[in-house]
Amino acid sequence: MNAPLPRTAEVPIVRPNQTPLGELHLAALVASAAEKSQAQPGIQLLMDLVAADMQKVNELILSKAGSNVELIPIIAKHLIDSGGKRLRPMLTLALADMFGYAGNGHVILAASVEFMHTATLLHDDVVDESDMRRGKLAARKLWGNQASVLVGDYLLGQAFKMMVDVGSLEALRILAEASAIIAEGEVMQLGAAKNIETSEAAYLKVIEAKTAALFAAASEVGPVISGQSPEICAAARRYGMDLGLAFQLVDDALDYGGSSADLGKQVGDDFREGKITLPIVVALERGSDEDRAFWKRCLEQGDIRDGDLDHAIALLRRLGAIDETIRRARHYGASAIAALEALPDTPHRQALRDAVEFCIARVS
Amino acid sequence: MNAPLPRTAEVPIVRPNQTPLGELHLAALVASAAEKSQAQPGIQLLMDLVAADMQKVNELILSKAGSNVELIPIIAKHLIDSGGKRLRPMLTLALADMFGYAGNGHVILAASVEFMHTATLLHDDVVDESDMRRGKLAARKLWGNQASVLVGDYLLGQAFKMMVDVGSLEALRILAEASAIIAEGEVMQLGAAKNIETSEAAYLKVIEAKTAALFAAASEVGPVISGQSPEICAAARRYGMDLGLAFQLVDDALDYGGSSADLGKQVGDDFREGKITLPIVVALERGSDEDRAFWKRCLEQGDIRDGDLDHAIALLRRLGAIDETIRRARHYGASAIAALEALPDTPHRQALRDAVEFCIARVS
Repeated sequence: MNAPLPRTAEVPIVRPNQTPLGELHLAALVASAAEKSQAQPGIQLLMDLVAADMQKVNELILSKAGSNVELIPIIAKHLIDSGGKRLRPMLTLALADMFGYAGNGHVILAASVEFMHTATLLHDDVVDESDMRRGKLAARKLWGNQASVLVGDYLLGQAFKMMVDVGSLEALRILAEASAIIAEGEVMQLGAAKNIETSEAAYLKVIEAKTAALFAAASEVGPVISGQSPEICAAARRYGMDLGLAFQLVDDALDYGGSSADLGKQVGDDFREGKITLPIVVALERGSDEDRAFWKRCLEQGDIRDGDLDHAIALLRRLGAIDETIRRARHYGASAIAALEALPDTPHRQALRDAVEFCIARVS
Repeated sequence: MNAPLPRTAEVPIVRPNQTPLGELHLAALVASAAEKSQAQPGIQLLMDLVAADMQKVNELILSKAGSNVELIPIIAKHLIDSGGKRLRPMLTLALADMFGYAGNGHVILAASVEFMHTATLLHDDVVDESDMRRGKLAARKLWGNQASVLVGDYLLGQAFKMMVDVGSLEALRILAEASAIIAEGEVMQLGAAKNIETSEAAYLKVIEAKTAALFAAASEVGPVISGQSPEICAAARRYGMDLGLAFQLVDDALDYGGSSADLGKQVGDDFREGKITLPIVVALERGSDEDRAFWKRCLEQGDIRDGDLDHAIALLRRLGAIDETIRRARHYGASAIAALEALPDTPHRQALRDAVEFCIARVS
């Protein structure tokens, strides 16, 4: 990373015998699991508000994923059709629409953001040697690593071409920066993989770069092309960044506890790939020497035997590592909601607040 | 490809019993092998003209390939140090300097072009499963496919960030377009690999996209940021495109006849990878049924035995396929030189003319 990221790295790990989130009072803004069961938060309001624009985004995506080179639209369509929620482009649309943005630039940037994300997924699957993506066979399993690398490159090129059409150098700068940072985060993760000495600070830098940076950029470009003040743009960016962190932490927790049907991937993918995620960092800090030897064998040496995943999940639960990860997600979710206070009180703001709760409710 | 490419596809194959290049009178502009031996053309003039700017490009490349993520500068430095001629950035510099461009934008764009090229090399090596690159072990052999994919992505992101700094949306459009087209060409090549039915037209589309498009873009952005007319910009683009085609055809010929020391890779890489290049297309058209069975076994089925490469080279020479490929390279070289006529008569123009002859002299 070019800049230090003290804010995220400074959050201390809360011990099981401490009052959870004692110092993280913002978390109260996020519905607790109990409240959630009474009033299920969702992204329906967000989807409704951007529905007309999202239709245009989808049309643009299909048209720009086209190519006379047959394999490109086939692979692009496979990914685009495979049912992602399109959360990132919705952020761009809502955060432009909130300011009454009248042009077509938010639609184009939203499609660019989704292309960047899709390109990342294609390359991630190659890097992680994944077999599944969103409940379907990964593109690399169907068409090979080579095609996944190259179609990812194509989509990235198309994304930048589309951004140029919008004509905002500032939006281009933000998204190009995100593109470099995402790749940097992935390289960092490569270095952290299979290394149980990975610190929480190092882990947070990884997810800030590989996941949250695109949420942040997708959010920031909305007010940027609407000509809003630096303060407003910064608040939108902070919302996206913190939402992205919460989103990734929830994903990390789900990988050891969600149902594979919900997540669209098998439980235990991170475990099998030797990824050091926050649940593992917490478990390593709280566990015994014997536990440490277990993580070392499984994650560093890749020596995974029958029953190890079940043992890992039991261990994470016993040490409160999953709960701790979810508490962190709530913390960042609350911080995202707090950032919204600087934005105008429109239905979009409520929708963006709901989106945070939706992300966290996936695991609560 | 989004647009048809009739110009390159319409060049007919010249039969061995025809007068070589009878209809390609422009080729006379390029020094023949005999003339060359008297007055060795070189890129010294080009290198001298852009030396001061190239120093700035090299400094910028080193600074922008930096990252706190250790693996990134290591891999980037490995590639950047490995002795590429930096032909593409020299084109950008010369074609801005020719018009007295006074800013720093040409230096930044030249560095961006080199980053785009380096990113392509990293991804190519993964796609081709290459072991060597410019006479050194390929990055993927030293640090793995994963790091090569991701560091390529990082350099591409950095390239776009740098382009934004220049502030020319038109230059951004040209380079973003090239980025998408290069990837499209690589996917096309994937489809053409191991398919001996590949036509010359299909082959030319591949190399126009995967190689010539970046030469064209690197050349065009020089006059673009210098505020030149559309005609001048188009001439610079045509120069780059035709030079790129000539360059790739020479590479294809060298793969069956150059010395590995000159090329920085082993002879026969294309053969072993089942790549259908122009020498093969010509040989298939001119050869016997028995020859066809040989190419099919080696290139389509990948069943390569001791002595097959020697047999392939002997066959290509006997059928005049290498000479035919070099004649094509001369044709495009001549066309590149003709395009220069539209540009001002400065030392840069002479240097760009010499650069064409230099590229072709590699094989003559």
